[in-house]
Amino acid sequence: MRSQPSREEVGSARSLERRYREVRDTSLDLAKPLSPEDCALQSMPDASPVKWHLAHTTWFFETFVLEGHAPGYRHFHDSFRVLYNSYYNAVGDQHPRAERGLISRPALPDILAYRAHVDRAMAALLERGDLREATASVVELGLHHEQQHQELILMDVKHLLSLNPLRPAYRSATKQPDLTGTQPLRWQAYEEGIRWIGDRGEGFAFDNERPRHRAFLPAFELGSRLVTNQEFLAFVEDGGYERPDLWLADGFATVKGKGWTSPLYWEKSDGAWHEFTLAGLEPLLGNRPVCHVSYYEADAYARWAGARLPTEAEHEAAASEVPVEGNFLEEGALHPCPAPPDGRAQAPAQLFGDVWEWTQSSYAPYPGFRPATGALGEYNGKFMVSQMVLRGGACVTPRSHIRATYRNFFAPATRWQFSGFRLARDA
Amino acid sequence: MRSQPSREEVGSARSLERRYREVRDTSLDLAKPLSPEDCALQSMPDASPVKWHLAHTTWFFETFVLEGHAPGYRHFHDSFRVLYNSYYNAVGDQHPRAERGLISRPALPDILAYRAHVDRAMAALLERGDLREATASVVELGLHHEQQHQELILMDVKHLLSLNPLRPAYRSATKQPDLTGTQPLRWQAYEEGIRWIGDRGEGFAFDNERPRHRAFLPAFELGSRLVTNQEFLAFVEDGGYERPDLWLADGFATVKGKGWTSPLYWEKSDGAWHEFTLAGLEPLLGNRPVCHVSYYEADAYARWAGARLPTEAEHEAAASEVPVEGNFLEEGALHPCPAPPDGRAQAPAQLFGDVWEWTQSSYAPYPGFRPATGALGEYNGKFMVSQMVLRGGACVTPRSHIRATYRNFFAPATRWQFSGFRLARDA
Amino acid sequence: MRSQPSREEVGSARSLERRYREVRDTSLDLAKPLSPEDCALQSMPDASPVKWHLAHTTWFFETFVLEGHAPGYRHFHDSFRVLYNSYYNAVGDQHPRAERGLISRPALPDILAYRAHVDRAMAALLERGDLREATASVVELGLHHEQQHQELILMDVKHLLSLNPLRPAYRSATKQPDLTGTQPLRWQAYEEGIRWIGDRGEGFAFDNERPRHRAFLPAFELGSRLVTNQEFLAFVEDGGYERPDLWLADGFATVKGKGWTSPLYWEKSDGAWHEFTLAGLEPLLGNRPVCHVSYYEADAYARWAGARLPTEAEHEAAASEVPVEGNFLEEGALHPCPAPPDGRAQAPAQLFGDVWEWTQSSYAPYPGFRPATGALGEYNGKFMVSQMVLRGGACVTPRSHIRATYRNFFAPATRWQFSGFRLARDA
Amino acid sequence: MRSQPSREEVGSARSLERRYREVRDTSLDLAKPLSPEDCALQSMPDASPVKWHLAHTTWFFETFVLEGHAPGYRHFHDSFRVLYNSYYNAVGDQHPRAERGLISRPALPDILAYRAHVDRAMAALLERGDLREATASVVELGLHHEQQHQELILMDVKHLLSLNPLRPAYRSATKQPDLTGTQPLRWQAYEEGIRWIGDRGEGFAFDNERPRHRAFLPAFELGSRLVTNQEFLAFVEDGGYERPDLWLADGFATVKGKGWTSPLYWEKSDGAWHEFTLAGLEPLLGNRPVCHVSYYEADAYARWAGARLPTEAEHEAAASEVPVEGNFLEEGALHPCPAPPDGRAQAPAQLFGDVWEWTQSSYAPYPGFRPATGALGEYNGKFMVSQMVLRGGACVTPRSHIRATYRNFFAPATRWQFSGFRLARDA
Repeated sequence: MRSQPSREEVGSARSLERRYREVRDTSLDLAKPLSPEDCALQSMPDASPVKWHLAHTTWFFETFVLEGHAPGYRHFHDSFRVLYNSYYNAVGDQHPRAERGLISRPALPDILAYRAHVDRAMAALLERGDLREATASVVELGLHHEQQHQELILMDVKHLLSLNPLRPAYRSATKQPDLTGTQPLRWQAYEEGIRWIGDRGEGFAFDNERPRHRAFLPAFELGSRLVTNQEFLAFVEDGGYERPDLWLADGFATVKGKGWTSPLYWEKSDGAWHEFTLAGLEPLLGNRPVCHVSYYEADAYARWAGARLPTEAEHEAAASEVPVEGNFLEEGALHPCPAPPDGRAQAPAQLFGDVWEWTQSSYAPYPGFRPATGALGEYNGKFMVSQMVLRGGACVTPRSHIRATYRNFFAPATRWQFSGFRLARDA
Repeated sequence: MRSQPSREEVGSARSLERRYREVRDTSLDLAKPLSPEDCALQSMPDASPVKWHLAHTTWFFETFVLEGHAPGYRHFHDSFRVLYNSYYNAVGDQHPRAERGLISRPALPDILAYRAHVDRAMAALLERGDLREATASVVELGLHHEQQHQELILMDVKHLLSLNPLRPAYRSATKQPDLTGTQPLRWQAYEEGIRWIGDRGEGFAFDNERPRHRAFLPAFELGSRLVTNQEFLAFVEDGGYERPDLWLADGFATVKGKGWTSPLYWEKSDGAWHEFTLAGLEPLLGNRPVCHVSYYEADAYARWAGARLPTEAEHEAAASEVPVEGNFLEEGALHPCPAPPDGRAQAPAQLFGDVWEWTQSSYAPYPGFRPATGALGEYNGKFMVSQMVLRGGACVTPRSHIRATYRNFFAPATRWQFSGFRLARDA
Repeated sequence: MRSQPSREEVGSARSLERRYREVRDTSLDLAKPLSPEDCALQSMPDASPVKWHLAHTTWFFETFVLEGHAPGYRHFHDSFRVLYNSYYNAVGDQHPRAERGLISRPALPDILAYRAHVDRAMAALLERGDLREATASVVELGLHHEQQHQELILMDVKHLLSLNPLRPAYRSATKQPDLTGTQPLRWQAYEEGIRWIGDRGEGFAFDNERPRHRAFLPAFELGSRLVTNQEFLAFVEDGGYERPDLWLADGFATVKGKGWTSPLYWEKSDGAWHEFTLAGLEPLLGNRPVCHVSYYEADAYARWAGARLPTEAEHEAAASEVPVEGNFLEEGALHPCPAPPDGRAQAPAQLFGDVWEWTQSSYAPYPGFRPATGALGEYNGKFMVSQMVLRGGACVTPRSHIRATYRNFFAPATRWQFSGFRLARDA
Repeated sequence: MRSQPSREEVGSARSLERRYREVRDTSLDLAKPLSPEDCALQSMPDASPVKWHLAHTTWFFETFVLEGHAPGYRHFHDSFRVLYNSYYNAVGDQHPRAERGLISRPALPDILAYRAHVDRAMAALLERGDLREATASVVELGLHHEQQHQELILMDVKHLLSLNPLRPAYRSATKQPDLTGTQPLRWQAYEEGIRWIGDRGEGFAFDNERPRHRAFLPAFELGSRLVTNQEFLAFVEDGGYERPDLWLADGFATVKGKGWTSPLYWEKSDGAWHEFTLAGLEPLLGNRPVCHVSYYEADAYARWAGARLPTEAEHEAAASEVPVEGNFLEEGALHPCPAPPDGRAQAPAQLFGDVWEWTQSSYAPYPGFRPATGALGEYNGKFMVSQMVLRGGACVTPRSHIRATYRNFFAPATRWQFSGFRLARDA
């Protein structure tokens, strides 16, 4: 999936080995607050049980690294090849996605044993120190893959717990700073011109970020910060969910079909707006970025505000000029979505972290796109239709996983990802 | 639910207290082979998680006994009133049935603590020895209710495990005796006449078994034993599932809509028929009663065989003449559906145990039926439409729960209950 | 389908020929007020286009009479064998029921030509005067079959027009008499005893009315008249549709799932209740029998009123004692559902006409039931599950089609038939 | 919708009046071969009855021209404002789209009277000769709108007739020329560079074709002709519909979910491939462009062929260089989809007519897009999500309706439009 590993990232087999352990441990850390039942349930077809995530990420290393590169490797269990294959047709059959929550066995301890089994074999492989670059690339891909599933674990757990009338918490609440105000929205101007878009080849990137290519961008302006809960609440209270003129036709049909009246996880309780969070039900903080909105809601808000969503090229052009800093999932110190230090969420030009940012770009191949060869070619390319691109990363995205060229994507009606947005406008 | 408790059954508060403990312990025994995940999943809207069964049967005693009859009783958790209410509108709201499998918390240990909490309060109540008859009746009803859920636990666990590609077993297989043959089918003749049907008032009975009343029955003949796997296989191999002339219209539409080609849990593997059982996948035994067929399949087989299903009055008339003996769930020695001792399954006139027997009678109120008063009136009466009656009890039915007048009922397309059938014909 | 044709009914081939013409003409008369579009549309899977009814009843004579009994008969069009087969698997394939409204061609004139073609061949057959009794029986069955479809035409047209926001009328309104009051409800008592139920063999009857057999009936009382709109409105206004305690569980789920708040075709307009009728939207007349209620609604009303629905045996026992008189579809003078002459609708012991009466009996084979042989055995028997019996006939039922033993049947949630009910109670 | 009407198009009120008559007459001509039933049925929610198309296009002129610009205009029928509003929320309520086929009245003659009523008022308005430019623009938009519905009429009629087991024809077959071969596929090369995309303002254009803007296009090559039936058949016979590696994930799920094994309307009959056409079932002609394929099928074929679909910008860049010539719907000589004169379908660089060409571009706003003001802003903009762009026009598209910048769009799973494709590849 990568052509040239960067100095910092791979360096030596040693650093890959260390990174392997760190990433794998993080997954276990994320599961620690969870009971076997928490790890087994599937709240909707889009989500998967945590147990499945823990097994599937392991299956990835077993299938794409150990099978081909670790002579004598013995599979943990024959049936896992099908049971934990997500969508790789080239590998073979898959257990139906919507039925992942109907599998009570293997139990959680069995899955942990599976992880340990694969980790031992991976350690032996990585310790040998003679890994070929192609193999190292697949290991690196596996780690980024696992980081994606770490974010999915938090998304899926949040969704599952939100359906429980007891409103249970995944973690305890962190103390919220006194956010006394939101920085006023400023419009950052960018001139028209041809821009280079896509991976520069200086580190890991997915195949969908390549090839680097040129695009002509008219002049545009980008909002200096994300749209906040308070701003979105004004849209809600202005009857935003009742006015078809503000919505795409599919969007309004979705709103009415599903009975949406606010972002996912918002609820009015005792007369005040609250938000279900990983720490349970919490008062809605007006100065925080709005989160868990669909593309349709982001688009409708933008229309209401007399603006539009940025394209992914516009976001990348802006993001390439600033450091990758933001409120991310810190490995080794897991605090998904803590309260931000005062003011930081409003840092000028902050284009990373906190929430994924919907763009108005549909997810499509870059000019000259070539998917990876073999089964791994199914990783990204086959989803390039009917999805919208999100940029920037969220507070549940591992910090080392993000970059300015990163293309996340979801269907326009989905909301369980940590998705918000910023405004753009024509110059 | 009962007017006159029988000598043997109640006798004294002491015997009720002992019986309470026995029944409650049996539920826990049934759950012992299960992991927390096994207990948390819901395989379909008709089924419920084991954890839910354990909680709901407890809720029954809390709601209908302790709330009204145990002064000073403190609820274990306020939210359980809604969470574990199955369908009693008079008690209040209910958590949606199809979403019982989306509740990871309370965890299994919490439910066990809930059971212990209620059991302590029930023990204190029952030990006082001054229980009024009306209260004792509700306790007795609660025990029969829990016995119904014991059967549901085994039905639901079997269904859940059957969906697992690993084909896991709930219990180990018992040694199968050498069944060298099936007793030939004989036709037992019964003369026409007016029969008394329904509860005699000599022990516990549900309200739907009352009042005892007269019915005119034309002369009829009843098969001396249940239809066997071997016999049903002949129907399958004769193209039974492909011939619309053998089926009710709804039945054939169901067969085609669901793609049925054999009873539930049958599968051909390596060229031989197998059956998924509580002990995992086992070879299909020809001499065992066919099980897990819908009403439609029983009806079609009967038509194919030139016979018909009995009415519930015919079954009761015959069953009233023989002792309640058969292959039931033995409390204190839990072996659901063991292999039968050689020959016993073929005992003449055996009308109980092994499998529930579909009748051609729809579930309807007896003439003069009055549902119990209050919320408990919802127990049976409100289901009296679009269901067919089954009689006789199954190997997963607790032995002390069954009697000749017992009316079980299921919708005609259901198959996950342990349902088989015997033939009848006009004289 | 019949054993002994009665003197009056058949008499001679001549009378059969005359009756054939009358019945066939009536179908055309019913279609006269309709445009080609009215005749082509299908408003729901339960309903069929009028054009289909006109063709299918013709197909019946072609398939079951002419094919076997008219040597040299030439089919009108080969494809009609499949296209207009309703549900006779023994005849062969069928065009899918739900897609009857997707067939724009053959056009209405083609269907009329098809009818003329078959009518000519039938006339030739009937004129020969040497019809064997078996053949005459099938002709007679075909005529009753066509009469059933005449009622279906009016049901289906009413439903189709009701979906049209223009609220069009099938016929002009007839002058409504001044109904100054409803006769008070009296309870007619019937003693317990064994009753003979089913066809006496004195005229045409369907196979499902046979064999005549005995049933034991406890003493009961029957309401002297049907429940009226005014009475049902009191149930509505008492919150009847909001109180789960009044309903069967399936019934309440249906009410909530479909959003029912009153009988089908009722609507409040300008503050007053109206009813969509074959003459368009009309003010709701309080003294008319309530119509277009489901079994669930009839059952819930009865519970609310402290009574119950009669069984079909109770209805037949009572109906056998009175003449078959009521407000029926008069052939030769088509006025479906005219206003009743003052007072007649309240005639004591009137058990026929106006509306079909729901009974609490599910549709099941009589003891000793044998379906007709051959394809015609599919006429009735294969529907004997999950349906409830209605008795008495309606204002859209042809007068010569009804009798005390007649068993109509519909699924409990259906309402587009002209269905009402009367109350019963235990003595 | 337009800024500067071109000399040729509008010129004077006189030419607009003439064009109005021509376009309106063409709609009636298209309906002439159809019976009232043909015009009333709706074959699926995506399609509409022809009668509805005839009324809705009339409603467009009534609502957007006559209401505001013809003082004293009297509506034909009040209820039509809702009944024939397609999706303009700013105008008010709409009759539900999926229920357009449940409206038997107004009958076809009533709709024709409605058309005549509006045409008289329009004629009076246009004859006055003092039309303001803004009004003339809306009239022009209404004519293009009606031309779009002319194509929809043919699409929808074809779909409806295809569901009829009689396989009826809309028109008689035209003599098929002897197509002796397909011109070999050549690759036309285009250099990289900045291109101007979008409406030049020289004639009518929809708002979605504006504003004209620059885009950077890498070098690319375009196939000289459309993919043919014969070529697509090779894909089918190579197991194309069974190989998940060739498909987008959504595409393969659609193929399996719907059971697709070939393009819509293809069927094998007597061992040979046929195609249902407007002239009934015809042998499949290998040299004709493949038609009625979804985006998914076009995309899968391209992957199988080692190529890709063009972007809409690539198509426009190429199309802008050639005249708008092709096999279109000729007004005044209606022969939708006649057989092409030998060779013409293979004319080099032919980029118009015959079939719409799928592009790999999702339907999105051009940079700086502003929807038209008022209700007409709903015409295009609100559909800009989850749709793919098609270019070039089809044999059922009116000739005067098409141009190089025209953007058609459909959801990727749709096939009832006349859609084919050509290949592209990176240079």
